[in-house]
Amino acid sequence: MRELLTNVRAPKVARARRLLKRNFRKDDRAFLAEGPQAAREAAKSGNVRTLFITPSAAERYPDVVQHVENSGGEIIECTDTVIAEIASTVTPQGMVAVVASTPAVLEDVINSDTTLAVLMAYVRDPGNAGAAIRVSDAVGATGVILSTDSVDAHNPKVVRSSAGSNFHIPVVEEVTVMAAVARARECGLQILVGDGSGTPLTSALNLSAPTLWIFGNEAWGVPQEVLDLADQVVSLPIYGQAESLNLATATAVCLYASANAQHATDSQ
Amino acid sequence: MRELLTNVRAPKVARARRLLKRNFRKDDRAFLAEGPQAAREAAKSGNVRTLFITPSAAERYPDVVQHVENSGGEIIECTDTVIAEIASTVTPQGMVAVVASTPAVLEDVINSDTTLAVLMAYVRDPGNAGAAIRVSDAVGATGVILSTDSVDAHNPKVVRSSAGSNFHIPVVEEVTVMAAVARARECGLQILVGDGSGTPLTSALNLSAPTLWIFGNEAWGVPQEVLDLADQVVSLPIYGQAESLNLATATAVCLYASANAQHATDSQ
Repeated sequence: MRELLTNVRAPKVARARRLLKRNFRKDDRAFLAEGPQAAREAAKSGNVRTLFITPSAAERYPDVVQHVENSGGEIIECTDTVIAEIASTVTPQGMVAVVASTPAVLEDVINSDTTLAVLMAYVRDPGNAGAAIRVSDAVGATGVILSTDSVDAHNPKVVRSSAGSNFHIPVVEEVTVMAAVARARECGLQILVGDGSGTPLTSALNLSAPTLWIFGNEAWGVPQEVLDLADQVVSLPIYGQAESLNLATATAVCLYASANAQHATDSQ
Repeated sequence: MRELLTNVRAPKVARARRLLKRNFRKDDRAFLAEGPQAAREAAKSGNVRTLFITPSAAERYPDVVQHVENSGGEIIECTDTVIAEIASTVTPQGMVAVVASTPAVLEDVINSDTTLAVLMAYVRDPGNAGAAIRVSDAVGATGVILSTDSVDAHNPKVVRSSAGSNFHIPVVEEVTVMAAVARARECGLQILVGDGSGTPLTSALNLSAPTLWIFGNEAWGVPQEVLDLADQVVSLPIYGQAESLNLATATAVCLYASANAQHATDSQ
């Protein structure tokens, strides 16, 4: 039987809680995975340093505890109050994991095997970044690049909205758009940029070719110098009166168009 | 020169603020449009009863003020503190409109002209509901049905995330799934239900036919009795390791597949 941690002022709690701040995530090379979905994927990845979990959550999710134990992580049974002290989300459902970050590099995301990769340029909203990581995983992209001046991959809301996908595909941070595009060209990828000013997706050239997709910031879109790097700027047709789509939904529609075209070619 | 309202306890402020609650939105047949984007669309619709606006916002957005004046709405110049007292969002950017709601009926959304309509069954998350309304507008759907036991169309977060689209297309509330499906069949629409258990979208039958799309709740998906009503249950292919997509992105990909197929047929 483990001892139950009840003290919200315990040093271990403070060390976990400080991971809510980006600087500390960097210094400590760790981040938080809150709730069963993210914590399970973290546990399966073998990178959980510490799992804070309530006794009732430990009973409901024995697989998470088992994975953490198998990879040598520490299990701390604690109260809901301790969980609430650490977590940023309203409903962490009795568990928060402290996860060692394993930094990805650009070559993990764009390499000679890549047929689809995603660059989020200057994305600031963590919900959009997480949703983009999730859909990039769904379409089988090699990985995601968050450019310089973007939200960081381990922001708790990014981790939460990526729904575990940040543990499935590499997410590289702090890469300039220029460096990513140069690497993509070296590897023979075409550069498609999603922007309202572009050619409608339905008549876009060759979606089945290996592609780096670039999407812009949620408020101000894609800057001209990035548009200039594109082989083609692509827009989604608007058949109604909406001015635009939100970033996550636009990203999903574009990536599925490429993935479906690539897989249709495969099966011919 | 108008008098500046500074008193956060003024009766007019209280009457606006109470619209944050669903019951009062129903009783008063009104709702809030926060920030310039939603307030502008509301003003253009001619349904703004009262516009609370700071002097600096009035200077930045004279078109919004003009539209409200033209349709006989009241302008109340006030401080940022008053705006913050009324609004639910963090950044209403100096304006909140009290808008008369004009209830839609099922026949507005599904009628003999409809080629595409959307039913959100038991959707609870306002961000997802708003994003679904926005993408339904973008694809040119006739309108959106929010079933019984869903978030209401005038929840401030729904209005915000629909980005003005709730003023472009009818959104009908509190309709049972059965009633919507019966109406769709009367009007000759096929019923497609989005669910992970279905046939991949890429091999779905006849996407160009007039369609009612049904999507389920963000956490527990589509119940069996709704799946049983479908002509076809359709899933998005998952090429990677993600278990699923979020509701708003899945909705966007499915609706664009139908709209693109329908418009490709039109232009033949």
